[in-house]
Amino acid sequence: MTLDDSLSIHVPKSDWPRVVIIGGGFAGLKLSRSLVRKKFQVVLIDKHNYHGFQPLLYQVATAGLEPDSIVGPLRQHVEERKNFYFRMLNVKQILPEKKSVATDVGELEYDHLVIATGSKSNFFGNKDIQRHSFPLKKVTEALDLRSQLLQNFEKSVLTKDIRKREALMNVVIVGGGPTGVELAGAIAELRNHVLPQDYPELNLKRMKIYLVEGAGRLLGAMSESSGKNAQAYLEKFDVSIILNKLVQTYDGETVKLNDGTQLYTTTLIWAAGVMGNTVKGLPDEAVERSRYLVNEYGQVKGYEDIFAVGDIACLKTEEHPHGLPMLAPVAIQQGKLLADNLERLREGKSMKPFKYLDKGTMATVGRNKAVVELPGGLRFGGFFAWIVWMFIHLLYIIGFRNKFIIFANWFWNYVTYDRGNRVIIRTYKPKKNRDRKTEKNPPKDGES
Amino acid sequence: MTLDDSLSIHVPKSDWPRVVIIGGGFAGLKLSRSLVRKKFQVVLIDKHNYHGFQPLLYQVATAGLEPDSIVGPLRQHVEERKNFYFRMLNVKQILPEKKSVATDVGELEYDHLVIATGSKSNFFGNKDIQRHSFPLKKVTEALDLRSQLLQNFEKSVLTKDIRKREALMNVVIVGGGPTGVELAGAIAELRNHVLPQDYPELNLKRMKIYLVEGAGRLLGAMSESSGKNAQAYLEKFDVSIILNKLVQTYDGETVKLNDGTQLYTTTLIWAAGVMGNTVKGLPDEAVERSRYLVNEYGQVKGYEDIFAVGDIACLKTEEHPHGLPMLAPVAIQQGKLLADNLERLREGKSMKPFKYLDKGTMATVGRNKAVVELPGGLRFGGFFAWIVWMFIHLLYIIGFRNKFIIFANWFWNYVTYDRGNRVIIRTYKPKKNRDRKTEKNPPKDGES
Repeated sequence: MTLDDSLSIHVPKSDWPRVVIIGGGFAGLKLSRSLVRKKFQVVLIDKHNYHGFQPLLYQVATAGLEPDSIVGPLRQHVEERKNFYFRMLNVKQILPEKKSVATDVGELEYDHLVIATGSKSNFFGNKDIQRHSFPLKKVTEALDLRSQLLQNFEKSVLTKDIRKREALMNVVIVGGGPTGVELAGAIAELRNHVLPQDYPELNLKRMKIYLVEGAGRLLGAMSESSGKNAQAYLEKFDVSIILNKLVQTYDGETVKLNDGTQLYTTTLIWAAGVMGNTVKGLPDEAVERSRYLVNEYGQVKGYEDIFAVGDIACLKTEEHPHGLPMLAPVAIQQGKLLADNLERLREGKSMKPFKYLDKGTMATVGRNKAVVELPGGLRFGGFFAWIVWMFIHLLYIIGFRNKFIIFANWFWNYVTYDRGNRVIIRTYKPKKNRDRKTEKNPPKDGES
Repeated sequence: MTLDDSLSIHVPKSDWPRVVIIGGGFAGLKLSRSLVRKKFQVVLIDKHNYHGFQPLLYQVATAGLEPDSIVGPLRQHVEERKNFYFRMLNVKQILPEKKSVATDVGELEYDHLVIATGSKSNFFGNKDIQRHSFPLKKVTEALDLRSQLLQNFEKSVLTKDIRKREALMNVVIVGGGPTGVELAGAIAELRNHVLPQDYPELNLKRMKIYLVEGAGRLLGAMSESSGKNAQAYLEKFDVSIILNKLVQTYDGETVKLNDGTQLYTTTLIWAAGVMGNTVKGLPDEAVERSRYLVNEYGQVKGYEDIFAVGDIACLKTEEHPHGLPMLAPVAIQQGKLLADNLERLREGKSMKPFKYLDKGTMATVGRNKAVVELPGGLRFGGFFAWIVWMFIHLLYIIGFRNKFIIFANWFWNYVTYDRGNRVIIRTYKPKKNRDRKTEKNPPKDGES
């Protein structure tokens, strides 16, 4: 949004306490939807005017779903409106001593502040990887990756240089968690079923899909058997899995692993780490490894009126000494509880502590293949797990319209082996310097 | 697409004559689909990898349809593949003396060349309007307009300055042809039914939608009664129609008409003219008002082996002394005939002359309202016309998947009065200088 001097953030005074929520992800949206039914003035601030359903981003990136199907307007999703104010803005800083937040167009005071800013890709300081790789945390990143994959195939038919052609076709995915596994499966499906019809000129058997994971197995957050199942499914789809290896450098064409292995690709997808998306203004003591330390009520360390929920909150428990995992169910449960707790606070009652109700974890690997783990040790894979995966995702995505459109798309894709969205609407333009020639010496850290 | 030295346009030699087609719009796509079934090597070159259904662009711009629903991959739409080569490239110049075309990655020879490059917005040399206004000929332009409309509403809640707020909310559409009429109706529907729920803070009664037309009535290509019907429908939806006026200047905030009237808006939509999208390389004698002069076989003046079809072709007939209208049915019919004629040429037969079969014209104004004119003088408006309009558009859009998704969206929008796609995926960033302060003197022609 282009801003200008005449704009300011203004919200009418209210007799009810004002809760300012930064971020409309799973936690912020759930909190907003609950809180507007109570006696609070709710101000939701987000850089975007939509809530994005991140678990399905990889399907947008692989042309299975349209981007609009997995997002929904925030103004529509919070149904009660008299006490709800949405502002599409960037928060620059929290000013706890003034009980206000500084935005691009001025300051806004709060009675309670809730930080729900989520997480972002973590490149662990490797600027080369950050510059050349494709992360997958935002809708625009998913569209960039979709354009890149398709552009590369259009380029492949324009070169007779086999080495060049393979670098254009190959894909290297770094990170063997759910995102990496699901992406690898979806790209394998594109290669095995969709692309051969589009590109009879290319020998798609020469297209390699590598999944590189630093640990000894896939899906580290799930059981060993689920990791092995996922690996077996992916290998059946002809994905090359490289375990116990780390990526050291990437110059846009050559990936070097820590054992010296070199892989050639113009498309390195980075799914190897996320970190909290902190806001300026709170002291270092409140932050641990990029997340805000919170107590069992969600209060940020050192504050009574500042809360954090979702990925950005680090709540340490006995079972999770480094903080609860960054998962949608945690965020949703925290958002819901905080709405109740703020009401209890207002009524002079004591707040209830957060208890994470583990609902299980799952990952799909592609057509008819998924792994599911339910609490209590029930684990299963294959077709039934795949049905469960689809059902749960349709259940969690917000809005009947999105459920309907996504279901229609999935049905279509399943029956026809087609991906209807393989169009390059906006050409992906590499970041500056991306296309410079491969150098003998990678640039020094900090150079850009 | 980022290009690089190692790329080249190469297509294998064939015993069959090579037809190079520039452009995958209605004409180029129809021709490709017919020609691949005959004994020709078909090379289709387009800057994009998709065919866009332009008649529904305005619904993308007004959040009624997702962009992917109205486009389809060109590689998929041409079904026979052994003799079909698609190249996503920009054609720089035609080299008739070498019987080849120059592209970004080298030259390609042809036996027959078909120019099907369509049309683009015509600003009649007014650089200020070109810089500040929103045209609507491309999918990316429709997305830019959608972002702009929504961003403006998000900005409106950030200002208390009434004049500024109205400039942000108001929309001025220039051009009273089908595009202008359909856009005005769709934006009025947004204002009347969708936006009030999203923006209870704004008084949407103060939002004005102006439709400015230089002639004395709307829909100049249709009958006077259809023009009057469309005007009555639009006025019922509270669109302000200004006839017999031309836009003289626009600085990004103030529109000045030739009678001195000033309108305030940050969103001027330009639907007032199109022109042919010519390619470099053919002599001036072959071009008339930006279109290639063709004979009844589609041959460009002065050439036997270069053809033009669709909007870019100017075929003068008794009924149309300035050339056939730039309409999808003309393009489709010309594409189809040219495929037959190329085959006849190959077989040593004489070509058949083109005869335009007028299938009628129509325009929708919004919910339950449209005007239709069939050949033979049959004219009707209202609900039945609206049903016919929808049916014909669904019939003409290519691919069962798109038909299905569009129908589902229309059904949803009609029943719920909702527009599910009101999300700002990519922020619209004004062109440089767009936001400078209003100047007393508009910049000189040529300044940018």
